[in-house]
Amino acid sequence: MKINITNVYSIQIVAITILLLSFGNVAGQENKQMVRLAKLVIDSTQLEAYNIFLKEEIEASIKLEKGVLTLYAVAEKSKPTHITILEIYASTEAYKAHTQTPHFLKYKNGTKDMVKWLELVEVDPLIKDMKIK
Amino acid sequence: MKINITNVYSIQIVAITILLLSFGNVAGQENKQMVRLAKLVIDSTQLEAYNIFLKEEIEASIKLEKGVLTLYAVAEKSKPTHITILEIYASTEAYKAHTQTPHFLKYKNGTKDMVKWLELVEVDPLIKDMKIK
Repeated sequence: MKINITNVYSIQIVAITILLLSFGNVAGQENKQMVRLAKLVIDSTQLEAYNIFLKEEIEASIKLEKGVLTLYAVAEKSKPTHITILEIYASTEAYKAHTQTPHFLKYKNGTKDMVKWLELVEVDPLIKDMKIK
Repeated sequence: MKINITNVYSIQIVAITILLLSFGNVAGQENKQMVRLAKLVIDSTQLEAYNIFLKEEIEASIKLEKGVLTLYAVAEKSKPTHITILEIYASTEAYKAHTQTPHFLKYKNGTKDMVKWLELVEVDPLIKDMKIK
């Protein structure tokens, strides 16, 4: 069998390209998380019903979606209608997939007349991979 | 030795009281966490120095203090001087102990001229013991 030198070079170039792309992917994955603060104000007459919807949605997301790393929801003690959710997704793709799930759509449709105000704030975590003990 | 019946009753009452108090404590511990949102605005000319102080303080707290469950700090992507910290302490006692540590005092004293605005908001988590995967 005769080996064509040009073909050998081509194979080497392809191999190096694959290698470089794979390093690029690994590096990219480290910083792929999507972190957000959702700030909401809920109609006070519907707060109890809203909290039931939110709790069910969060529990389903954490249980069923590997890419939903947390949805840590808090209500202000002095203003329980003011809610903040620290949302951490493994990637923007994981977030997009989350918004298509039946449990998210149930929450979104079920609460649309309960939410008086919603602000979504994209954020950067100061320390990567911070956890809760 | 003569046993006084009244004393036996007294001892029983004391024992039952201790038992009831101990149950009360166990139940209380489940909901003892202190959760807070700290919202800060930092002087833009000192943001880099502030972030170094904050990162060092958080890393020391998480490493050295069992009762500091998380200090999850985020900066708004569009306004990096606007910082929010989700603070979770095992108890108010753990929080009080935290404020006396050398690393906290170093942060507090070191950054007092960098913080333009600080709001501490006491909050209730919607779901107890929510974690970050």
